[in-house]
Amino acid sequence: MKDLIPVAGNGLLDRRAFLRGGAAFAAAMTSYSASAETLTDAPWSKEPGELVPPYGGPSKFEKAARTLSNPKGEPRTQHARTPHHLLQGTATPNGLHFTISHAGNPDIDPRQHKLAIHGLVKRPLVFTLDALERYPMVSRFTFVECGGNSSPLFSPEPIQTTVQMMHGLSSCAEWTGVMLSTLLEETGVDPKAKWVIAEGADAPHLSRSVPLSKIMDDAMVALYQNGERVMPGQGYPMRLLLPGWEGNMNVKWLRRLELTELPGMSYYESRTYTPILPNGKAYRFYFVNDVKSFITRPSYGYAMQGRGFYEISGIAYSGAGKITKVMVSADGGKSWAEAALQQPVMTKTFTRFRIPWQWDGGPAVLMSRAWDETGEVQPTRAEVIAHRGQGTRMLPPTAFISQHYNGPTSWAVDANGGVRHVYV
Amino acid sequence: MKDLIPVAGNGLLDRRAFLRGGAAFAAAMTSYSASAETLTDAPWSKEPGELVPPYGGPSKFEKAARTLSNPKGEPRTQHARTPHHLLQGTATPNGLHFTISHAGNPDIDPRQHKLAIHGLVKRPLVFTLDALERYPMVSRFTFVECGGNSSPLFSPEPIQTTVQMMHGLSSCAEWTGVMLSTLLEETGVDPKAKWVIAEGADAPHLSRSVPLSKIMDDAMVALYQNGERVMPGQGYPMRLLLPGWEGNMNVKWLRRLELTELPGMSYYESRTYTPILPNGKAYRFYFVNDVKSFITRPSYGYAMQGRGFYEISGIAYSGAGKITKVMVSADGGKSWAEAALQQPVMTKTFTRFRIPWQWDGGPAVLMSRAWDETGEVQPTRAEVIAHRGQGTRMLPPTAFISQHYNGPTSWAVDANGGVRHVYV
Repeated sequence: MKDLIPVAGNGLLDRRAFLRGGAAFAAAMTSYSASAETLTDAPWSKEPGELVPPYGGPSKFEKAARTLSNPKGEPRTQHARTPHHLLQGTATPNGLHFTISHAGNPDIDPRQHKLAIHGLVKRPLVFTLDALERYPMVSRFTFVECGGNSSPLFSPEPIQTTVQMMHGLSSCAEWTGVMLSTLLEETGVDPKAKWVIAEGADAPHLSRSVPLSKIMDDAMVALYQNGERVMPGQGYPMRLLLPGWEGNMNVKWLRRLELTELPGMSYYESRTYTPILPNGKAYRFYFVNDVKSFITRPSYGYAMQGRGFYEISGIAYSGAGKITKVMVSADGGKSWAEAALQQPVMTKTFTRFRIPWQWDGGPAVLMSRAWDETGEVQPTRAEVIAHRGQGTRMLPPTAFISQHYNGPTSWAVDANGGVRHVYV
Repeated sequence: MKDLIPVAGNGLLDRRAFLRGGAAFAAAMTSYSASAETLTDAPWSKEPGELVPPYGGPSKFEKAARTLSNPKGEPRTQHARTPHHLLQGTATPNGLHFTISHAGNPDIDPRQHKLAIHGLVKRPLVFTLDALERYPMVSRFTFVECGGNSSPLFSPEPIQTTVQMMHGLSSCAEWTGVMLSTLLEETGVDPKAKWVIAEGADAPHLSRSVPLSKIMDDAMVALYQNGERVMPGQGYPMRLLLPGWEGNMNVKWLRRLELTELPGMSYYESRTYTPILPNGKAYRFYFVNDVKSFITRPSYGYAMQGRGFYEISGIAYSGAGKITKVMVSADGGKSWAEAALQQPVMTKTFTRFRIPWQWDGGPAVLMSRAWDETGEVQPTRAEVIAHRGQGTRMLPPTAFISQHYNGPTSWAVDANGGVRHVYV
């Protein structure tokens, strides 16, 4: 322990500990002296292995999968949540990127799919996928998060469930496509245009209205996701990508962009994503996903292996820009220490934070708090509830009407090594 | 064309063209005036779509898959190559990361797998996966490339095949794991130790020797690949990761690291990866994957759609550090223009380069050349051949004994819109 410097209560250690060398983690570790037993051959070391497939998938021993809210595909929305408690780093693999599909995933033939840009433009145009492929492309890492992500945190009592069920409607990938500013150079823009109404080719024809300023700033027609074509659940063959803005606005299976003077006031912007506040008013629009963080390990469902060294790790992000700082507490917010941020930190992208922790085997409450480059800080849960209200319970255990929860998530570690969800 | 500034022969345009706005790509594009026909509903817009699965996969319309050298799994090596000509950005999705398995993919039970570190250490240790999971982790993007990648370019005549078949034994991912410098702090290192012999748990017990200096610099025991557990073909449940060094040394299914005074001179370092040079000598070791680049689009198999605007796009990387510059030629090397590099450029990682091109419909020869931060520049093909020799033909069309080809790849576009492989 000589080189592991405590920096906050209940065992939090200096984030630079493991970079200095000489850190004596060993005392805490479950490791064993080498013995002859070690080097005997397991069955898989004695015979040829399995066939290499054209498209690889996880080991059959792996349990990482998306949880499904509607596994039989009944005629309502299907949610598939990312298992953050089992993942690491910042990229979400394509198989595990969250999906919300309001009528399943349309099985679109890319040769027949077209994107129309019309309305208040000088020259309405229709683009085939082949045409879009010839335009200059841009790649960027960015997260997409549903406005309803984290809604279980509005519950009056802390719900005992995983990070996946709480925060699994948020994922991060490298997206490649054509900037909408490029395509609108082609069509020209009528000076009267102030909004762009985006429409999907799915059966509900999901549509959302986006201010033209966002479209011209950093909006993209995304064709690729982590290098390969966009997955069916993420909008194959193309989706609208609005870095840092409410997931539902990132219209999937994109087929139409209409430039208008006024927003369309569609279902998803006049009813579902306009939560009523305690004062009886409602947000007319709530675009940006505010600064947020949560600890993914240890978290609910993790079994501590006894006192000693652990790494506390989680994800922070902000729809407004780069994460600048994440503070972590092991004593329920009484004291805090700064976590290390995985480099390079990119704007509107997941940032992995990590801090070493020496658990003494006693009760502890872990929580995190993030700051972004605009100076915004993650609020306390009390601040969120005071401002937004509690929401209304719809379907247990995860659906509340209120949205955009960005307060902390708190994990209580007990002396038996269990991890529970608590409010502090 | 008024804002598209020519910067080199045969139609290469300023890489900043599309960032300035006002660029008149339209003249070149296959786009159409909007019409009522556009907004009619396709069949997939009229009925509910498909069930959202727990683990997503590509659309059935997508052809992107790895080519297999041994699809029946006969008792010899299996190669699965990344389809770079169909991908974009810098990340390789886990399903398409290249694999070379010398006896298939072992089906390892992670609860039984252990990593032993022994030999010239102060305290030999064995680590279970659970033990490793408690150590401080690091995430980094890096490529892995087989020393035999690009070997078809040693052929005396240009082989007519895809980027996938030429350069598909190279891929890039975000890897997360425990630094070996951290684990060697646990075992302690005997001052006599100079090498580390790494051994896999696959049936051939593939082993390679790594200088201790590399191990202490940036080597990692990787547990995660693009966020999820390492894929079976990439070494599940753990692999050695040596950023920028010959792929075969990044031992998969890692079970043992022995610290020694001398290298082990195993099969893969005394025979397969020691090509004989024209002067009769051989490299004893060839660790670093030198600076390299190739154009992925247009490339062999791409059908040009007629004269007009295209984006030329490709990948550059260096095992020595960051890419600093990529130059592109459209006239077979007579004139060159600087390509745009996707940001952020990270060390020992794929860097996507792009440059706009106005094809006049006539013959053109496209090629690229990359520089890295150490000042190394990609050599000409003649320089590579003069130094390394031609190699010996083994199996058509892709296997030559010689390795580490890092010269240019040249694509000849003909007046019919075909793209052939040529030497210039």
